[in-house]
Amino acid sequence: MSVVPNADRASLAGPSLEAIREAHARIAPHIHRTPVMTSQSLDAVASAQLYFKCENLQKTGSFKIRGATNTIFSLGEEEVSRGVVTHSSGNHAAAVALAARWRGVRAWIVMPSNSSLAKRRAVEAYGGEISYCEPTLSAREATAVEIMRRTGAVIIHPYDDDRIIAGQATAAVEFLEEVPGLDFLLAPVSGGGLLSGTAIAAQGLEPGIHVVGCEPKNADDAYRSLAAGRLVPANHPDTIADGLRAQLGERTFAILRERVDRIVVLTEEEIVAAMRLVWERMKLVIEPSSAVAVAPALGRKLAGPERAAEGKRIGIILSGGNVDLVSLPFR
Amino acid sequence: MSVVPNADRASLAGPSLEAIREAHARIAPHIHRTPVMTSQSLDAVASAQLYFKCENLQKTGSFKIRGATNTIFSLGEEEVSRGVVTHSSGNHAAAVALAARWRGVRAWIVMPSNSSLAKRRAVEAYGGEISYCEPTLSAREATAVEIMRRTGAVIIHPYDDDRIIAGQATAAVEFLEEVPGLDFLLAPVSGGGLLSGTAIAAQGLEPGIHVVGCEPKNADDAYRSLAAGRLVPANHPDTIADGLRAQLGERTFAILRERVDRIVVLTEEEIVAAMRLVWERMKLVIEPSSAVAVAPALGRKLAGPERAAEGKRIGIILSGGNVDLVSLPFR
Repeated sequence: MSVVPNADRASLAGPSLEAIREAHARIAPHIHRTPVMTSQSLDAVASAQLYFKCENLQKTGSFKIRGATNTIFSLGEEEVSRGVVTHSSGNHAAAVALAARWRGVRAWIVMPSNSSLAKRRAVEAYGGEISYCEPTLSAREATAVEIMRRTGAVIIHPYDDDRIIAGQATAAVEFLEEVPGLDFLLAPVSGGGLLSGTAIAAQGLEPGIHVVGCEPKNADDAYRSLAAGRLVPANHPDTIADGLRAQLGERTFAILRERVDRIVVLTEEEIVAAMRLVWERMKLVIEPSSAVAVAPALGRKLAGPERAAEGKRIGIILSGGNVDLVSLPFR
Repeated sequence: MSVVPNADRASLAGPSLEAIREAHARIAPHIHRTPVMTSQSLDAVASAQLYFKCENLQKTGSFKIRGATNTIFSLGEEEVSRGVVTHSSGNHAAAVALAARWRGVRAWIVMPSNSSLAKRRAVEAYGGEISYCEPTLSAREATAVEIMRRTGAVIIHPYDDDRIIAGQATAAVEFLEEVPGLDFLLAPVSGGGLLSGTAIAAQGLEPGIHVVGCEPKNADDAYRSLAAGRLVPANHPDTIADGLRAQLGERTFAILRERVDRIVVLTEEEIVAAMRLVWERMKLVIEPSSAVAVAPALGRKLAGPERAAEGKRIGIILSGGNVDLVSLPFR
């Protein structure tokens, strides 16, 4: 188990709870209010009461549509009129494409040339205009900036933006409205948009709740950054959780160090085992990134020396369900 | 497309709507009231409004727990005291084991020696006592009868029993309470317990609804039996829909010929394609037998010469979600 103690909470960065509520009102006409599911079978494995917020059932198959929709609908008519641009190989790409379609503007999506066919098709299905580039972060950023300069499109960052963070936080708002009194709230962490928003919302709505970030051991820059007290770059992340290969931004790091109870890191084996249990017992298709937030509860990796998680009420955000069915990790 | 015209409806066999309502009250404290889900993405494929009753999320992972629970809880104290016995390699086995545990009696489950490990484990997890036999119907029946004689246990037939049929019918009762005004209601057919109960409930609650049975072309004894007007035995069924290899019984045949609008038969390719779409778009794990009832809507195989299914409200019973994740049909 991996524990990072709470940092000093004097200066609280990020969007306010009020901004999160405004985001929720802004996006509610477009997104699904996803169901919360339970499983007696998984409760028995965890010796706890588990609640699953099913963002795998969200539009585009992940929570990313929340932040993208909030950001794109926060822009003024004039500002958004020339469209939006982002770079992403995954769920944020599809989310920006769909949110832009809802807003009625063009979306340019920069994708690395090695993106999966399934992800390209999703972006195309939502009307996104794809530009391919070399599969490096610098090539992606340079291509997005070039499109921005050429077209006047607004760049939509995948996580290091208060409007994105406020949007992602709305999943926790719905979750805690439906299931009050959670002891723990678990979410995966990659760039930190979901986890930082979740922490702000949860602590505002449910003081005393323990917000736990969940991260692959093979992509543990958030764990290492919080332990070091400074941003530590990702170190060649190599994990099956393909949605969790980004690294914290300045903004999300500042929020997490103030708000998050701890980061738990999971092995690849723990991630696949948790994913399999959710597929088999709950009959839900979740992607490996979602399983990262299930594994600590099933593996009883939540309890610190000062408290036990047994018998507690544990909320888990299932972040998405986009997988390639022809290359599954089950053996 | 394959159409069997309605038969004369003079003599109506099977449990009454009242018996079905009693069954529902009897089993409601034990089973899940499963959710009804929708998918804009699949609606677009079908050009219709689709509603999915998620019995894959039911206890034991299939609707079979409804009939097993109704039957076992219908038995008198004395009658049930020496336990129950059944033969099944699949979902009925797990259902009988769990319902017997709820009733507090022993359950002997005769399983063919080639049953999958996953299915044996499910039965064991619910406390069923497994007897293995040769993988033939006659060996299964003989072994069950031997156990009945030795122990005094009551045999729980998988489908050809009014109490089973009334139990399976309760899924349609919940479905139509939640989604009134369906034009079509689709369910898979194997032994016919689910389909015959569905037809009785649906026609009682929603006169004018078209109840459609869905069957693999490679296991089409129900289609051929209704076409011939007499029970035609299954002809070496060989289909990926492993839950649909049984054949109609006398009782279910009598109900279906009076009640069912038509039987649509599906190729293996249509079944796998429908299964894949549900996994990918709805993020639901369904077994191939469930996909058999999805395929006619997606493939627009519902419209007869006299009417179109486009734009209609189509209910689909997703019968179960028990699959072996290490041998999936996706390529």
